[in-house]
Amino acid sequence: MIEYRNLKIAILGGGSVGAQVANLLIQHGDELAARAGAGLEVIGVAVRDLDAKRDTDIPQHLLTTDAPALILGADLVVELIGGIEPARTYILQALHSGADVITANKAVLANHGPELFEAAEQVGAQLYYEAAVGGAIPIIRPLRDSLAGDRVTRILGIVNGTTNFILDRMDTEGDSLEAALAEATRLGYAEADPTADVEGFDAAQKAAILASLAFHTTVPLEAVHREGMTTVTHDQVLAARKAGYVVKLLAICERITDATGTEGVAARVHPALVPRDHPLAAVHGANNAVFVEAEAAGSLMFYGAGAGGIQTASAVLGDIVSAARRHVAGGPGVAESTHANLPVLPMSSVTTRYQITLTVLDEPGVLAAIATLFSDRGVSVEGVSQSVRDGGDSARPTATLVIITHEASESALAATVEALATNSAVSAVVSVLRVEGL
Amino acid sequence: MIEYRNLKIAILGGGSVGAQVANLLIQHGDELAARAGAGLEVIGVAVRDLDAKRDTDIPQHLLTTDAPALILGADLVVELIGGIEPARTYILQALHSGADVITANKAVLANHGPELFEAAEQVGAQLYYEAAVGGAIPIIRPLRDSLAGDRVTRILGIVNGTTNFILDRMDTEGDSLEAALAEATRLGYAEADPTADVEGFDAAQKAAILASLAFHTTVPLEAVHREGMTTVTHDQVLAARKAGYVVKLLAICERITDATGTEGVAARVHPALVPRDHPLAAVHGANNAVFVEAEAAGSLMFYGAGAGGIQTASAVLGDIVSAARRHVAGGPGVAESTHANLPVLPMSSVTTRYQITLTVLDEPGVLAAIATLFSDRGVSVEGVSQSVRDGGDSARPTATLVIITHEASESALAATVEALATNSAVSAVVSVLRVEGL
Repeated sequence: MIEYRNLKIAILGGGSVGAQVANLLIQHGDELAARAGAGLEVIGVAVRDLDAKRDTDIPQHLLTTDAPALILGADLVVELIGGIEPARTYILQALHSGADVITANKAVLANHGPELFEAAEQVGAQLYYEAAVGGAIPIIRPLRDSLAGDRVTRILGIVNGTTNFILDRMDTEGDSLEAALAEATRLGYAEADPTADVEGFDAAQKAAILASLAFHTTVPLEAVHREGMTTVTHDQVLAARKAGYVVKLLAICERITDATGTEGVAARVHPALVPRDHPLAAVHGANNAVFVEAEAAGSLMFYGAGAGGIQTASAVLGDIVSAARRHVAGGPGVAESTHANLPVLPMSSVTTRYQITLTVLDEPGVLAAIATLFSDRGVSVEGVSQSVRDGGDSARPTATLVIITHEASESALAATVEALATNSAVSAVVSVLRVEGL
Repeated sequence: MIEYRNLKIAILGGGSVGAQVANLLIQHGDELAARAGAGLEVIGVAVRDLDAKRDTDIPQHLLTTDAPALILGADLVVELIGGIEPARTYILQALHSGADVITANKAVLANHGPELFEAAEQVGAQLYYEAAVGGAIPIIRPLRDSLAGDRVTRILGIVNGTTNFILDRMDTEGDSLEAALAEATRLGYAEADPTADVEGFDAAQKAAILASLAFHTTVPLEAVHREGMTTVTHDQVLAARKAGYVVKLLAICERITDATGTEGVAARVHPALVPRDHPLAAVHGANNAVFVEAEAAGSLMFYGAGAGGIQTASAVLGDIVSAARRHVAGGPGVAESTHANLPVLPMSSVTTRYQITLTVLDEPGVLAAIATLFSDRGVSVEGVSQSVRDGGDSARPTATLVIITHEASESALAATVEALATNSAVSAVVSVLRVEGL
């Protein structure tokens, strides 16, 4: 019988994840102790309401409504309340007391990360947050440790399961946005108010966390350009399928050099066309995946279930074991590294490719005129496909033109679209979508 | 200007990976020091021949032929010689001296892992080996740390780029095995003697490493069942494509319960059919991917380039930074955990599904007779597809029968195949392949 030092664990939050974490710690206590080199004793689970009904039972004697008192006696504090307050206050209290903190809370990290990391560094504690992005998918640890000797150049992430489910239904089942959202709600993938998911707020928080970590630079949430996916139409998804693309809501973090030569980083969330043969195109349903490009490692992808109580609990438990091993070894935690301190550049500095779909008059000279309109604004065209006459009337028949550009700046593209909209040969600008992963 | 403690790094091996590691450490020294919290000084690169021609230059003053003397002065020793000796001796020398060791050497780990891990534990040093499996793909750290609180049930890995390249060519280009191997050789993916790759020796070493780590149990290389992929025919690959499968050489590590009720683990390497909609089916070219199933996390996949000097260097550098952070924090390393100590079960305990392709007489009663032959031996048939008459002569025409079984034991399957081979209604047993990932 091996005797271990006992570590006292306080769990804040008795929801789906909190209950799973408490139960797995109790159920697999001996095995986890052997892996951690320390006993892992749950000293309490702080909840708002002792009598609330729960999906998974928590032993009654562990429940308490007094979170601050619980934190006081803990070596490790596991914050699973979510949202900003009181989570932020409790995390700070725990760190100031010298406890390591494990959190799954993307909102508090995206909004108050620097404050929390600084509090941890001051006392040599460590803040673990593998569960905050991508559920059970290991992505924080690979970025922080495995790629610590490499230079990440770009991250393309499907980091929101709800919107991937919706877009995948539209693509594979031909659903409308409304029908796909209704199905997501029915299956419990979408909340009653889906705004945080469909408008990209959730993905933007994760983009801020990933960009900060990957580029060793604080990327504030306000600096993440955000567009939701509620503007994506059934027609766009069908046309994308025909052209060999799939529409995904992506979180994109990248090193860029702007027009003045300034090297910096940028983060954005928006719907984008992804080529069908890209690994991200094969991410179906509510799954998540993070595609990482690094100078030496090349392209890597991390794939799995992005959410769910038990999956998130897996990531939290991995962090608990890591924190316990660190306590056994002694010494201060690894401080969050922001040494690179690169400028965070605005969306106007970003260049990318675009697909523009137009209805144009099917007349001689129109294609040449439109090509000139692009080149005059510094946007280089990579490819054009023109349909047969498919609209208008016999006097003035129209055709559909699908144009893919080379990399262009947001401003040059905006000027081009504006000129197209007022050009007499163009009946309509049907769709403008960014293209990623080419 | 921040002053860091300086860590002295000895590199053993001046090949492609060694030269890349040395150069990246020198080139990105300041950035890596900021991330590690310590200066990373290359004190020398031990090589066999000071004047050998190298793909990547190493500063001449760093070269030495005296590895033991170099190890003596090092805080971190990076072993990139490969093979068993003298690598094993040097790693032991380094660990005994208290240095942390970073290695990319799958052979020495698969053959002498327990000895090396024990040496590390005795002095509180740590042995890092992220680069030994899957090149730059983070897989060791996710298994050891991220999934430390979960229970891995199965690993399906494409861990050999050469054979994946060959099988992918056969599938996508319709190449013969010989033509695909010739192309792999031409492109530098296959060595002059490809035995280690095509006969599965390389994959078996990696299976032993992954199984030992994932199941907290020493899985010796001898316990890994190994079949190469040189028996895979052009016809099998074509038939698989038609039936919705792709042939992959897989390293499979799993928890199983044998017929006597003993719970244990098993590891095997062999060609297998993988359904086209499985994420592993989309792993093309020389890429690697490791698909992990865990009780709480569900299915995860880790994907990327499996080999190459610069990719492997990325994994090695990640380990160097991790080791440096540990040195700065102080305390002993995390010992390799073998606490579970599960029985390692033989191939005869494994159950899996099979696809059996037969040429049979196209006569009434034959299908029923064959179905009985399967069920009499305890093999349950999941599905049968029969082609139209496609052979034989007009007196005794034949047809092709493709049978997919439910999970069956190796011994029951072998008895069934033997009975089929001697059955008068069976002209030929064309192909027997295991089916994984269903």
